[in-house]
Order: sequence, then C-alpha cells, then structure tokens
Amino acid sequence: MAISVETFFLNPDAQGTLQAQIQEMIAAGILSGRFRAEEKLPSSRKLAAHLGVSRITVTLAYTELVANDYLTARGRSGFFVSGTAPVPPSFSPTEKGQETVDWAGTITRQFTGGDTPRKPKDWRSYRYPFIYGQADATLFDHANWRLCALRALGQKDFAAMTGDYFDQDDPLLIEYIARHTLPRRGIIARPEEILITLGAQNALWIVVQLLLQQGRKAAIEDPSYYTLRDQLGHTGCALDVIGVDSDGLPPEQIAADTDVIFTTPSHQSPTTATMPMARRKALLSRAKEIDAIVVEDDYEFEMSFRAPPSPALKSIDSDGRVIYLGSFSKSLFPGLRLGYLVGSEPFIRQARALRANVLRHPPGHIQRTVAYFLSLGHYDAQIRRMARVLQERRAVLEEAISSHGLIPANRSLYGGSSLWMQAPAHVDMGRAAEDLRANSVIIEPGAPFFSTETRRHNFYRLGYSSIASERIPQGVAHVAEAIRNARP
Amino acid sequence: MAISVETFFLNPDAQGTLQAQIQEMIAAGILSGRFRAEEKLPSSRKLAAHLGVSRITVTLAYTELVANDYLTARGRSGFFVSGTAPVPPSFSPTEKGQETVDWAGTITRQFTGGDTPRKPKDWRSYRYPFIYGQADATLFDHANWRLCALRALGQKDFAAMTGDYFDQDDPLLIEYIARHTLPRRGIIARPEEILITLGAQNALWIVVQLLLQQGRKAAIEDPSYYTLRDQLGHTGCALDVIGVDSDGLPPEQIAADTDVIFTTPSHQSPTTATMPMARRKALLSRAKEIDAIVVEDDYEFEMSFRAPPSPALKSIDSDGRVIYLGSFSKSLFPGLRLGYLVGSEPFIRQARALRANVLRHPPGHIQRTVAYFLSLGHYDAQIRRMARVLQERRAVLEEAISSHGLIPANRSLYGGSSLWMQAPAHVDMGRAAEDLRANSVIIEPGAPFFSTETRRHNFYRLGYSSIASERIPQGVAHVAEAIRNARP
Repeated sequence: MAISVETFFLNPDAQGTLQAQIQEMIAAGILSGRFRAEEKLPSSRKLAAHLGVSRITVTLAYTELVANDYLTARGRSGFFVSGTAPVPPSFSPTEKGQETVDWAGTITRQFTGGDTPRKPKDWRSYRYPFIYGQADATLFDHANWRLCALRALGQKDFAAMTGDYFDQDDPLLIEYIARHTLPRRGIIARPEEILITLGAQNALWIVVQLLLQQGRKAAIEDPSYYTLRDQLGHTGCALDVIGVDSDGLPPEQIAADTDVIFTTPSHQSPTTATMPMARRKALLSRAKEIDAIVVEDDYEFEMSFRAPPSPALKSIDSDGRVIYLGSFSKSLFPGLRLGYLVGSEPFIRQARALRANVLRHPPGHIQRTVAYFLSLGHYDAQIRRMARVLQERRAVLEEAISSHGLIPANRSLYGGSSLWMQAPAHVDMGRAAEDLRANSVIIEPGAPFFSTETRRHNFYRLGYSSIASERIPQGVAHVAEAIRNARP
Repeated sequence: MAISVETFFLNPDAQGTLQAQIQEMIAAGILSGRFRAEEKLPSSRKLAAHLGVSRITVTLAYTELVANDYLTARGRSGFFVSGTAPVPPSFSPTEKGQETVDWAGTITRQFTGGDTPRKPKDWRSYRYPFIYGQADATLFDHANWRLCALRALGQKDFAAMTGDYFDQDDPLLIEYIARHTLPRRGIIARPEEILITLGAQNALWIVVQLLLQQGRKAAIEDPSYYTLRDQLGHTGCALDVIGVDSDGLPPEQIAADTDVIFTTPSHQSPTTATMPMARRKALLSRAKEIDAIVVEDDYEFEMSFRAPPSPALKSIDSDGRVIYLGSFSKSLFPGLRLGYLVGSEPFIRQARALRANVLRHPPGHIQRTVAYFLSLGHYDAQIRRMARVLQERRAVLEEAISSHGLIPANRSLYGGSSLWMQAPAHVDMGRAAEDLRANSVIIEPGAPFFSTETRRHNFYRLGYSSIASERIPQGVAHVAEAIRNARP
C-alpha cells in the first residue's frame, strides 16, 4: 500500500529546518503505527511538490530515515517503510476510573504554598520587562557558548559528557574554579572543598538540609530571598529575621543562640546594599563569638561595575566558619542551573553525599561546556560586556526615576542589575504590578521578600538586566503613573 | 614591555584545538595578572615558530582575543594586552588558621555511609568491564545527538536554553512524552500529570520525600536498588523487605499496614525478573485492598529484545494509585541525568513544588536536545540498534557462562543489559571482584543490593552494555577462575 501524499502537511509554526520537519512527520507516523512496514512513501518529487519544498530537502530527509532504518530504499521503486522499523505496541490503556486515592492524607509533606512568587513565563513578550535574573539575548555571547558546547559534545569529551560521575564533578571545571575563579574573590580552596550544585538555589538547599532542623536556629536578612525562607520553613528550625540597613546585615543584632547566619554581603538580596569591610570583620567576630556558621551567598559580585568588588567574607575566614556559594547562572543564564559550594572538607563531604542521594551530579556536558567557556576567557569577556551595558542602563534608569520623582530605597555603590525601590506607604505594589501588565510593564513587587511579620507592600524591584536602555524611560513613566494612580 | 615567547608552552596532554590552547594560555595569563595592560605579545610568526604550529593558528587565536577585548591590534606594531582587559583583584587571601568548627556537632544529618557502593571511575581503562548502566561509545548515536544539541543551541531556541522555567518544564519534551513515549507503555497522561526530573534517582528521591516519614511504612523488593534503601533510611520510615522470586515481587507478602510499595516490574533490579501480567494485576488488587500507593520504576523496558515488553503496571491502574518512573539515562547515557515522573495531578503538583524548592528545574538545553532526539526518531533507532547488539552480547555471554559452569540466579526472558549470577555459597564475590581488577575485569558484587538482614555475598551482576562481544569469553573465564580459586 502506498502512503498518500495528502497525509503530509507542514505546520507553519514549527521550529527547525524543513528537512527536520519532514523527518519528524515520517518518524512519528511510523512510531505511532499509522505507517506500517512495507508501505510505500510518496516519491520525493511528489512530496516536494505537495509541500512546496525543494526535492533535495525531501531526498535528504528520506536518506536520513534510511540510515536510521525507518525506511528502506529499493532502487527505482522508491522508499518504503522498513520491515524492521519500530512497531508500536498493540495493547491499549485501561480506561481511567474515578481516582480513589486520598492524596491530601497520603502526601506527608506539602511543598506548595510558601512565599516564592510566580513570575510570568512570557516576560519576553512584554515591552518593558523590569524583570530580574533573566538572560538578555543581546548581551549573551551565543556564538562562543555554542562553540564551547560543541567542543564538549566532541568525541574526545565523550566520557565527560555521557559518564556517570557517581558523586564526583568534572575535574576540569573544579580545577578552573579553584585556580582562577576563587582566587579572584580572595579564596583559596582545594578540590575537596568545592562541590558543583544545580544552581545557587540548590546550593542553599543543600546547606539548609545539613545544618538546620527542629531545635536549631537560623538568622536571615530581612528582606531576603523568599525561596531561602521557604527552604528553612520546611526544616522546622527557629528563624530570626534581622532587618538590614544600608550596609546590609547588622552583626550586633544576631542572637547568641543562632546556629547559622545567612548573608549576601556583595549585594544584599534584594536591597543591593554592599557590606563594608569593617562590618564583614565584625560579622565574622560575632559568628566566632557565638560559634555560628556563616553562609555567604556571593551573589552578583561580578556585577560590581561602579567600584571593584570587595573580597569575599570567606577570604577573611581563618577558621573554616564560612560556607561560600557561587553561581554562574546570573552572569551566563539562569536555565544553565550551575553553581558551587565552597567549605571545609568535612562539610563538603556530607554535601556531596546528600547531593549524590538526591540527584547524583549535575549533567557532565554542562559542566564541561562551562569549563571551556571559562578557560577560553569568554566568561570574563562577557562579564565585562554586560557590566558596560548594565552601567549604561543604570544611568538611564537613575535619570528616569529621578525625573519622575521615584525613590530608591537603597542605592548600591557597586552596581548590580536591579534597584530596590520604595513607593509611598499607602501604595500596594503587588496590585500596581498587576495593573502595569496591561501597559506591557513587568516589575517585581517587594512584599514576598519580607517575612510575614515584617511584610511591607510599598516596595518593589526594578531589574535592568533584560530591558534595553531606550525602553527604560517610557517604562519608568508607566510605573510612576501607576504609583500616582494607586488608591490609598 | 614585551611578553617573552618563552612564557608559552603547549601541554602535550591538553584537549582541544591548538588555537583554543593558545587562546587559553593568553586569557589565563591576563586573568591571573601575569600579563598586564599594554604589554606586547610575541609576533604571530615568532610564537608560531616557538610552539611549532602554523602561523595562521596563532593569528586566529589573537583575532579571537581581540574580539573579546583581551588584546588590541595596533597595525604593524602587533598585538598588545588591551588597556581595558580584565584585571585581577589586588587583595590576597587570609592565611588559613586552625579550623575550629566542630563539624560533627554542627552537621545535623549525615549522608555519608549507606549502602551505595563506589564504582571505579576509570572503568573505561579496564579490558573486561562487566559494568552496569554506563554508556558504550560504540553504541551511542553521537552524530545525531550532536546535531540535536546543536539545533537546541540555536538562536531560535535561545529562550528554551537560557530561560528560567521557574517550576515548569520544556513543553516540547512534555508533549512528546505524553503523546508518544507513554502511549507505548499503555499510559495516557496529561501534561499536568508529568514532571521532568534529574534522572530516575532524583524521581525516586522526590517520591520518597513526599510519601514517607517516621510512622509510615514502605515495602521494597529484596534484593533492590541500594540507593533507594539509603533514601528511605534517611526518612526514618519503617521498611518491609520482601524477597523476590523469579516473577518479581510476590504481592501476597505485602503487609496490610504498608503505605507505599516500590517495585520494578519490567526488569526487577537487579535480578532482571519480569513480573507476569497476572501478578501485576494481583499486585494492584493488593495495593487497593490495603490502600497503598505503588511506585513503579519502569526501568529498562526498552531493552526487551527477546519478547515485546508488557504494558506498564501504570497502564492497568484505574484509580490513580500508581506513580510511574521513566528515564532516558539508561538508553541514552547516564551523564544526561533526565527522567520523569507520571502520577495523579495532586501528587505531581507537590512533586513540582518540592523540585522547584530543591533545584528549580532540569537545565533547559538538555530537555530541548532530548525532545529533538526523540521527535526526529533517533531515540527509537538507537534503542533498536542497542537491542540488536545487546542480544548478540547476551548470546555470547550465555554461551560463555554455560561453558564455564557459571550459574545465573535468574534469567530474564525479555532481555535487559545484565545477568544476575550466583556463585557457590562460600564465595565472597566482593573479595573476588577486588581480585578480578588485577586481571582488568570489573564485575559488580551483589551484596549491596540486599538489605543488611538478608545480605548474601555470593551473588554478582554481569553487565554487558559496555563490553564488546569478543571480550566476553575471556572476561568470563577470569570470573570463573576467580570463583574456583576463592577460599572458603
């Protein structure tokens, strides 16, 4: 039997080359059982004419399918579904009945709810995306990333890409971090003191699991990264929420019975305050005095375009008290999901065992690609390009907010990729943010960053890592208008 | 000042092209502060002669570095370190003192120890690697994987690769799994009932976190996958260990107070027994009777080359009681770290929230690459190629073990990629496995698969997914010899 040419149509919205689309249609037809063994495909001439594509495109698709044994070529008679092509199974699924499982009673721990807000997935379609922490296609060195990924996909790297590392990491990446990245933060660490994680959030999660539980106490900054608060909440530990000032976390307010202190000294999240060196030293002394562990999320240190970054807290830690978190996600792209933990060997050993238990290891191909991107110097070049653009955008943004009378709640001297803003006390920025979407503006309401006890609704964050300079003034004008129009 | 040509040397063991190596050397020199702004690089002619490479290679490396602003070109005067090249920070790390933190007291949960054995990382250098679950470079469709990865790295897929999915997955991959993969197992599921995980182990871990804690009881097969036992151990739940027979888990032995039943019906892990349809039905009835959840790890179903795979347990589940685990890691490569969970919507919602809390989402580029590899038909083609080769290896292995009088403890009628073997009762296969390394043989001792109470030392697993057919007979001869020579 011949397969009718009418069976085939190109989806106008499909991605990928025409050849790939034709291959996909035919493979899908065979795998789903619509096309059966020995059935004849339309001639390449006929199919090409029907689809309005060139004949060579169809021929190439057929040839690929022959190589994969979906089709066989029989000289002049044309192409047929191969006799040994995959056959779909013949059994059909049971009709679904009424679900009788009581899931509320069966699931012992709930993870939904919590403070982590939902952000719009389609933010790229907004005209004024003051969104934080997303990748800007215009700033990313796509070409070199592709080359590095390609190199990591090569035969030479087969083992690195495909292998099960069990609980280990890519030695090339670890070596680069130890020899180049950490020294630039003033940190010296051996490979046994470094663990690659699935992004900085995964690093935080690991630390929380190992150090906190009922009966322990954590101190966190307020406002702070909401997901950290969620993570701590699930452990049942006690939580001290310490308000930050324009220098970040005030060490003298840390209670004596605190076990673990979470801090973001480079750019406080979300206020962007940078902790001065004197306070860093005071924080370490306080930690030592009360025998607490300090978890330093060294987030966005690369984005210090206004002044050179201060050395990390970890670099002045002489007794192994600081656990350091780094990430490539912010400066490369968040979908990368790659970060690292640096700490004392006994701690990293447990962190490695926990990670192995949960997910084994971050995918090898990604680790190797980043290792190449770093060691070829593309990473630093990209950081500098980004810093230049962010500096320009920051200037435009400062100008726009000042001309509209908007008020920054804090102003990092070092740079960063966002401004932490304060509206008049009566304004609910959550509601304003929703209204602003109608004008194609995305801003981040500040409320989720505050603990429930201290929650304030008149703060918001303006990210400028994914919005072009020329769009900033009009976007800020919309924000100013929304704040003016907000009902008390 | 000019940088001396003597500073440069090529590492004979380095990976990557010569051009990339030269770029790396220079970028590293600048980033570490050895080469400073305005210093002159050796001429391309000189450096090429010194390194023994062609001049165009050096020129290309220099040109790349100019593009990234590490170097500037000044007409005929040559190349200089750019005045705006990155500068290393000037601070130096604090000397490390004595570590004073009491980590044993500080870490609240220990994850080291446990039953998960350490496998040799350098298994590729062994002549007779009867290792399980690793990728065989000769069976993997590297060329098409590379093409799919390349497509997923393209500009069109920028958002898919780089974006923060928050708690979501790649819609292309989910759609393919829902429309093509699951129907072939007899399963119908909506996107809300599917979650992508970081490999099957991560899927198991998520299930364990959500369903088990102190006061709950899990039933597992014995022998079974050791890491699952470790994962359950950390929750503090009660554990019933049920010995499997040649048809897998016997349902009538499941205690009435069991909350969750873990099973591997397709190929019992590690015995490879396939559960007959009648027993699958009995297992589901038993679960319904005692109101227990069933977790089905549908591991290796694609490797049923001796008979078509039976439909999954999940396909005959009418009341949403079965949670199904699938994985691409075994059939593609373990370093991929990609699997999926299928279950009722309320369960998947909590699983998604937990995953978001721990790691957000598996990297987008990997999800998209697999979506392409699947939809272009390469995955099925690869499975069939693998199945043919595994079938051949299996025949050679069966022949070899029978000629040496070795005894399979079980023999899957369906296929798989390993044999579960039994030595005489006095033989410690852990010790034999160690001795065999001296003959360049890797086998897996069976003891870690058994619970501590039922542990037996005379079992072992022979994987044949990464050993060439022609090596099998000699490898088996070594194993037979080691067993003969074992001291009682």
